[in-house]
Amino acid sequence: MAALREPHVVVLGGGSWGTTVASICARRGPTRQWVRSEETARDINENHRNSKYLGDVELPPTLRATTDFTEAATCADVIVMGVPSHGFRGVLEQLAREVRPWVPVVSLVKGLEQGTNYRMTQIVEEVLPGHPAGILAGPNIAREVAEGYAAAAVLAMPDQHLAANLAQLFRTKRFRTYTTDDVIGVEMAGALKNVYAIAVGMGYSLGIGENTRAMVMARAVREMAKLGEAMGGQRDTFAGVAGIGDLIVTCTSQRSRNRYVGEQLGAGKPIDEIIASMNQVAEGVKASSVVMKFAEQYGISMPIAREVDAVVNHGSTVEQAYRGLMAEKPGHEVYGSSF
Amino acid sequence: MAALREPHVVVLGGGSWGTTVASICARRGPTRQWVRSEETARDINENHRNSKYLGDVELPPTLRATTDFTEAATCADVIVMGVPSHGFRGVLEQLAREVRPWVPVVSLVKGLEQGTNYRMTQIVEEVLPGHPAGILAGPNIAREVAEGYAAAAVLAMPDQHLAANLAQLFRTKRFRTYTTDDVIGVEMAGALKNVYAIAVGMGYSLGIGENTRAMVMARAVREMAKLGEAMGGQRDTFAGVAGIGDLIVTCTSQRSRNRYVGEQLGAGKPIDEIIASMNQVAEGVKASSVVMKFAEQYGISMPIAREVDAVVNHGSTVEQAYRGLMAEKPGHEVYGSSF
Repeated sequence: MAALREPHVVVLGGGSWGTTVASICARRGPTRQWVRSEETARDINENHRNSKYLGDVELPPTLRATTDFTEAATCADVIVMGVPSHGFRGVLEQLAREVRPWVPVVSLVKGLEQGTNYRMTQIVEEVLPGHPAGILAGPNIAREVAEGYAAAAVLAMPDQHLAANLAQLFRTKRFRTYTTDDVIGVEMAGALKNVYAIAVGMGYSLGIGENTRAMVMARAVREMAKLGEAMGGQRDTFAGVAGIGDLIVTCTSQRSRNRYVGEQLGAGKPIDEIIASMNQVAEGVKASSVVMKFAEQYGISMPIAREVDAVVNHGSTVEQAYRGLMAEKPGHEVYGSSF
Repeated sequence: MAALREPHVVVLGGGSWGTTVASICARRGPTRQWVRSEETARDINENHRNSKYLGDVELPPTLRATTDFTEAATCADVIVMGVPSHGFRGVLEQLAREVRPWVPVVSLVKGLEQGTNYRMTQIVEEVLPGHPAGILAGPNIAREVAEGYAAAAVLAMPDQHLAANLAQLFRTKRFRTYTTDDVIGVEMAGALKNVYAIAVGMGYSLGIGENTRAMVMARAVREMAKLGEAMGGQRDTFAGVAGIGDLIVTCTSQRSRNRYVGEQLGAGKPIDEIIASMNQVAEGVKASSVVMKFAEQYGISMPIAREVDAVVNHGSTVEQAYRGLMAEKPGHEVYGSSF
């Protein structure tokens, strides 16, 4: 049998995670990265660095960057979307005119579209119908992965065979990509976890113990899984790397922006002031009100998200939030509706 | 309707966790604690302290301790077994001659019987047939619970109605007892998690990153759930407070003995030396070889446990263990058999 032509992977976006994933792909086969900035493209091509986002981490010399969108789009056999949620639709619309039919689209985005509350793959279905759309997600602090620390992610595609096939492109000796067909579950886990990181952050400010933190995280997994299942996801996903795995990192890492927001709320700072003081968005702030809309729409009780939303958006305090949770009577661990 | 007589709870055992649970029960209704030592009984009854195990934590004055086994056993409407696994069967045999029929038995033990590898409720079924047997477990560092930090546990009884009924006895404003009918799952989660805490401890010694730690913990949940399900448990339990909840505390707490063992193994110390240097047993050391027996018996691939067992019992090194795990090709996140 003749060897199959290796698929060309094209990563759109020049941020830290897009560059890290592009580096992973470039170690396996032909990979191109589209970036907006000439300077970043030159940095990648000439210095094998993305100094702006990844400091002096060395990138594989086989990774080629370009600022020419058409060149990148037309050569793609697989598209990886490393642009943030607010620019996602715009880039896809540009892509629609250039990309060949059937080319699968893999999102790296853990968030929802503002206004529509769409998952990223829903936008792909709308703008690029016929292109299989999925997501790669997990506990992946970009810098750590880029520096070669071992990590795991899960690639979700609507079809398990395609997931298994594509996953080979996203693996190295130290980056372990598992597979699933639960696109909805993985996308919702990524969108929801930040809300729960704020809850744990609020707890740190109250001086909660290790037991309490573990309780909030375990109950968060259950709460996320309930909504995820109602939306068509699989509950096992929330017990996996994109669920509890990502939640553990987001809740415990010192670098977590959402945890920081929770801690600052606990210190009594108003949310506007906290947001103004940060140079990056904490996704959980926006997500907390969106989650409550979903909870209502699907008729699901989500007490942790409710309390986070109350503090972030409705003037409640961190003390009231924890008191509110503790006042609920625990029921069946899996089928109960209370915190 | 006349008020029902309140059940008398009898806690057997005078250690830190037995005393803490007895205090929880004593806040709700009549509770007696049987302890072996006259001194401890006096300390509890006169000073409302268990100084030996809980320092100066104040116990509720309604908690009464006794060293008279017959007195304790005969008045019991609910038995709580707070004795360690090696003394469990002996106490039950003594109990068999005294306790009234039908009285439910709630184990607090997260471990298996040496020699038989029985779960504690299996011993109850053998020694006290006809008595419903279950377990109360969760991320519960005794000292923190005793000091009043919020925590959650799950009470598993073979019948959900009985679990819901009994759970009321084990609740305070700050101690949240959920319910389930998955006795096997909760017992196995408690017995298995220590093995995975050793794996994470080994990782710390190698300087693994936050991504890697989260990966090992998420994959540990999956590995535990696979065996638990094969033995008759429910996989949701492993995503709950007794599963991932307890695992988070066991893997991250500075006080965790099993994590410590892993770190010391990583520093190159032989296991005998590590054990000799500790004044308390690290359950994961014994459990690692038992788990491998179960894995073989049920035909399940358990790569993390396999590598821990190799280091603890077969002279492998921590570096080899992690290299062995990383050499496995990741598959389907839920149905794959590899690490």
